[in-house]
Amino acid sequence: MWTLKVVGLGAVAVSLSVELLRLFIHFRAKRAINKVLFFPSEVTCVEHFFSPLSTHSCLCPLPHGVETSFSRLLHYILSASSSLNVCVFSFSEVNLSRALLLLHSRGITIRVLTDRDYSAINGTQIGVLRKAGICVRCDRTSVHMHHKFAVVDERLLITGSLNWTQTAVQRNKENILITEDPELVQPFVKEFQRLWLNNNPTQLN
Amino acid sequence: MWTLKVVGLGAVAVSLSVELLRLFIHFRAKRAINKVLFFPSEVTCVEHFFSPLSTHSCLCPLPHGVETSFSRLLHYILSASSSLNVCVFSFSEVNLSRALLLLHSRGITIRVLTDRDYSAINGTQIGVLRKAGICVRCDRTSVHMHHKFAVVDERLLITGSLNWTQTAVQRNKENILITEDPELVQPFVKEFQRLWLNNNPTQLN
Repeated sequence: MWTLKVVGLGAVAVSLSVELLRLFIHFRAKRAINKVLFFPSEVTCVEHFFSPLSTHSCLCPLPHGVETSFSRLLHYILSASSSLNVCVFSFSEVNLSRALLLLHSRGITIRVLTDRDYSAINGTQIGVLRKAGICVRCDRTSVHMHHKFAVVDERLLITGSLNWTQTAVQRNKENILITEDPELVQPFVKEFQRLWLNNNPTQLN
Repeated sequence: MWTLKVVGLGAVAVSLSVELLRLFIHFRAKRAINKVLFFPSEVTCVEHFFSPLSTHSCLCPLPHGVETSFSRLLHYILSASSSLNVCVFSFSEVNLSRALLLLHSRGITIRVLTDRDYSAINGTQIGVLRKAGICVRCDRTSVHMHHKFAVVDERLLITGSLNWTQTAVQRNKENILITEDPELVQPFVKEFQRLWLNNNPTQLN
């Protein structure tokens, strides 16, 4: 009789523990990022991302302290703690470039892959990034390297229709999807690595 | 004593039932689509999508029976059973147009939103779709309607860098992400509806 009771209560204890563990895992999983941002984004001051003390002191005429699609995008890019791989057709937006320079100054490993033709257009930030010592490679094929994605810490995917240009951010109708789902992130991690190796300038004729 | 035993065994039974229910839900959730396709896609015969009997009879010189990124994209588009909302900057790929005409002939509700400037370029399929009676609206603002997404049955999102053109499919480096995750799909469902209403030609000056 006692044995049966002990077994019964033991089973209850095990089941409850499993349940608590599941709740814990579920709670962690629920915190995974899965967001969509639409553009154009309202133009607001983003100086606080670059000089944290400027939130209350910036005197520029733009609205301050407003959360927008663009400020959320900057937030996710600046969340990188070890690496940032950027694969964009066109890169001329100054604040996105400043975000990469800031991460670079913090010792984050940054790699930028872009389209050869669009790396030389007016206002491109590619030269600025290269000058600062950020590793940039250009797709040298005759077709367009038309991707617009970035992977933060091999964990967070930022992808969509948005080129990293001021027109795309402030004027066009665009979308960006931000996810930590490994089923979606990992293929992009691998594709970046493949394209990066395929465009190694030391192995090109 | 008996009460304690009954309570213990009852708790075990309840815990096991909850566990089974969780497994069932987990199994269903796992079947949700979450895919990434990369382009360019190998050029293969896709006639079997349009004439199911042609799989063994098509005499075209392209490879047959090969699964590619493009054939998977066609498969997901043709899986629509009630509605398809397409929001693409540029639409000139003939087989994607044929897919929409096939769905239209099956009575699926199709709505296409595109960029005004790119709706009139050489090879555009917008005229073909309109002629067949598919409802098309053009974004008439001076900025680009740069999206490249579609929503199947308000359940499945197809989005990425890929315009619906032959160059994008067969030549460029592009990506498409396909997901049933409601957190990602629902914002696109709402954004399509917003853009569709904003571009109602009967309410424009």
